[in-house]
Amino acid sequence: MTAIRPVFYVSDGTGITAETIGHSLLTQFNGFSFVTDRMSFVDDVDKAQEAAARIRAAGERYQVRPIVISSCVDSSLGGILEESGALVLDVFAPFIGPLESELNAARHSKVGQAHGMVDFDTYHRRINAMNFALSHDDGIAVNYDEADVVLVAVSRAGKTPTCIYLAMHYGIRAANYPLTEEDLEHDRLPPRLRPYRNKLFGLTIDPERLQQIRQERRPNSRYASAEVCRREVSAAETMFRMERIPTLSTTHTSIEEISSKVLGTLGLQREMY
Amino acid sequence: MTAIRPVFYVSDGTGITAETIGHSLLTQFNGFSFVTDRMSFVDDVDKAQEAAARIRAAGERYQVRPIVISSCVDSSLGGILEESGALVLDVFAPFIGPLESELNAARHSKVGQAHGMVDFDTYHRRINAMNFALSHDDGIAVNYDEADVVLVAVSRAGKTPTCIYLAMHYGIRAANYPLTEEDLEHDRLPPRLRPYRNKLFGLTIDPERLQQIRQERRPNSRYASAEVCRREVSAAETMFRMERIPTLSTTHTSIEEISSKVLGTLGLQREMY
Repeated sequence: MTAIRPVFYVSDGTGITAETIGHSLLTQFNGFSFVTDRMSFVDDVDKAQEAAARIRAAGERYQVRPIVISSCVDSSLGGILEESGALVLDVFAPFIGPLESELNAARHSKVGQAHGMVDFDTYHRRINAMNFALSHDDGIAVNYDEADVVLVAVSRAGKTPTCIYLAMHYGIRAANYPLTEEDLEHDRLPPRLRPYRNKLFGLTIDPERLQQIRQERRPNSRYASAEVCRREVSAAETMFRMERIPTLSTTHTSIEEISSKVLGTLGLQREMY
Repeated sequence: MTAIRPVFYVSDGTGITAETIGHSLLTQFNGFSFVTDRMSFVDDVDKAQEAAARIRAAGERYQVRPIVISSCVDSSLGGILEESGALVLDVFAPFIGPLESELNAARHSKVGQAHGMVDFDTYHRRINAMNFALSHDDGIAVNYDEADVVLVAVSRAGKTPTCIYLAMHYGIRAANYPLTEEDLEHDRLPPRLRPYRNKLFGLTIDPERLQQIRQERRPNSRYASAEVCRREVSAAETMFRMERIPTLSTTHTSIEEISSKVLGTLGLQREMY
């Protein structure tokens, strides 16, 4: 049995940066059993001491040195965390020095800049993009003029979560077009989509996987039958190929990966939130 | 005028880790004008050389040394990026050594572990949580038994984007309850919510800000009037106070910050995706 190793993400803000890099680091070590704990908004000495006490207690409970991934902008808090006896990895420290000398400027230590509402207009654009994705989700009465991207696929191939991810993290106005059975009788794009050819991105999926997903949603329906899933996927793939629509299979691809490929393929350069 | 400094996020995966930490670092340097570019899935020597050439070209165009934030797990690719002449910050390098000695194990360099579909069940739970948030968004015919959290607020105070964020990044089943005018005639929780007291979290908002948001949505409606906004917010705040529902104002709070506070307050420890 693998011993359990406690890991703490500690931040004076949301802790998203610490957890993102910490998760990436831990996935590079196989065969360990990490238990993780998030401590957000640790932004003064008292809270840092309280965090250090909890970390120390975890070390005693599990009889092993805890690991702390810290993104506290105020580096004096990091010193307090070290008193817990844990291995403290400060995710900013190694990079601040090289950046300061390259930019010939000192960093300022303001908390909560990365994931707070720093720029109201940008934040507003992002929330509007999410509302756009939510209200342009079914392909009905949708005006694609305002969309940055239109994801085209058969029902349940992964359009909706990807649209929402694109909106939430990149402020992209992403709309959906669900291919209907009627659309799939032709090898050509549905007429409504033709004016938007440059914004289209096709998603496809393994028919067996699609069947599983549809089966969960509407058990034993015609919609969830192996034959319908196979025929729809095959017809959609033919259409994408004939029309040269860039296409990606979602079967083994996460929404992060799909989003990243969509942005790269359509040449959309947006900063990530 | 501030000189423009090109910044590249380079990764053999999605680049989300590189961009997250890079963005956090850059926000600590005020008064610079960074132009950022994302290069995802740079996972072989050819692509790394192509990336290095683009980075070098940007340095020539802007007449300044580019900055590269790299999260390539394969460290040999980092060497190729350095040939561009840029300042290359490898977001993993400083932490691998300390982790290897602490864990007494070598890291494995498998690409795409952090944001790929590594664990199918986990990924599936997350997508299901998103579907849950989308289908439990209007408070109508919703069964709160299955919810982990129920966000309670007047219309347009920020419930929906927060629910989706909680689902997408933490796999939390987050439902909404929009307070109606009838609910707000009483200082007590609507009867439907009473059995779920421990899952409730109230959102509030500055009435002027609410008015702006509603005005964009339904211009010059009663719903968007200053008086209705003021009255609804005030009644909701009274109810939250009387019922001791934990509450947060969304006026200056991002969905990341709201989500982080909701998790902390309700004691939900979920790993972030």
